[in-house]
Amino acid sequence: MANVDYPDPVRALIVHLKQLPGIGPKSAERIAVWLMQQGEEVSTPFSEVMESAGREVIECRLCGFFSTHEKGCAVCDGLQRDGSLLCVVEQPTDILPLERSGAFRGHYHSLRGRISPLDNIGPEELRIRELLDRLRAGAFTEVILALSSDVEGEATANYIAELLRGIEGISVTRLAQGMPAGGGLESADELTLMRALQGRVGLG
Amino acid sequence: MANVDYPDPVRALIVHLKQLPGIGPKSAERIAVWLMQQGEEVSTPFSEVMESAGREVIECRLCGFFSTHEKGCAVCDGLQRDGSLLCVVEQPTDILPLERSGAFRGHYHSLRGRISPLDNIGPEELRIRELLDRLRAGAFTEVILALSSDVEGEATANYIAELLRGIEGISVTRLAQGMPAGGGLESADELTLMRALQGRVGLG
Repeated sequence: MANVDYPDPVRALIVHLKQLPGIGPKSAERIAVWLMQQGEEVSTPFSEVMESAGREVIECRLCGFFSTHEKGCAVCDGLQRDGSLLCVVEQPTDILPLERSGAFRGHYHSLRGRISPLDNIGPEELRIRELLDRLRAGAFTEVILALSSDVEGEATANYIAELLRGIEGISVTRLAQGMPAGGGLESADELTLMRALQGRVGLG
Repeated sequence: MANVDYPDPVRALIVHLKQLPGIGPKSAERIAVWLMQQGEEVSTPFSEVMESAGREVIECRLCGFFSTHEKGCAVCDGLQRDGSLLCVVEQPTDILPLERSGAFRGHYHSLRGRISPLDNIGPEELRIRELLDRLRAGAFTEVILALSSDVEGEATANYIAELLRGIEGISVTRLAQGMPAGGGLESADELTLMRALQGRVGLG
């Protein structure tokens, strides 16, 4: 006699939940059971929100951020944006922390990744052509490379900096590297300390 | 100028994801972004599975396990079940580990919780009346209480054992307590060791 298992709809839900990032088999089972115990009043609106989010949300053609309409997005449509600054990030999700810092009011450009030979991601997989198009068409005068400060992020930054050298009237900068706010010396790694020393700023 | 945030459909999805057990704000955001990046091909079937699971799966009227039809469930409908044994558990999810052990082929009864005064859960919140109905109507001769071995589980077990004393022809047992399989003495807590000693079995 076969062991009793969850009914098919529950097992199908567990299979889908297991695909989610950070959700293992145990979590998927716990979530599915929780949803079953809540019943339709919870699962139906949840499924509708998921369906409409998946259907309505697209990638902004210009910057690559999340958008709900064909032309532009909340950033690109912003009226009080500084049209001379373009900040290049790896992922659309990198835009929100920069926004929350309140220190940048220019435009963004998400590359949708970074150069990573081990993952078979070369420059042609990234939104670099779109970046060049925007720079040639637009009024940008400075490109700020806000990429990860690891090997792949730096390789991507170097590649783009090299490319942009051929475009006149555009200066290329990158984020400062150094000590994170609130971090004591004892918790900083050697590379961070080395960069903080190399980038030291005079107080005179 | 307000900071840019995710479009409304993404924020609504994050709100729903945060309700799930074990999912915090960061995980909810990561899962929502992942779903957006997968697009409709993933989110639409996912939402359909969630909707149909929530709609189709109900609680078995008899045992309290998950079911997809009005009468019975995979356990209650089982043909080769031992109709004399009834195993009482706290939650419907407790049924699967018992099934997987392969050591029990009787029927189950989920209480849908346990007596817990701190959470305002008394006997009347549990499926105890249904348990008594089954025992009076059925051919059960033994009730195995497979409840948690903590204070609330034991209080619930004692309460039920007391109730069942009045029903003739039914013996009440509980799971053995002792050393878990594969566990060394050094990893056992004092209460487990005490119970294992008290329940020691002769090898003679």
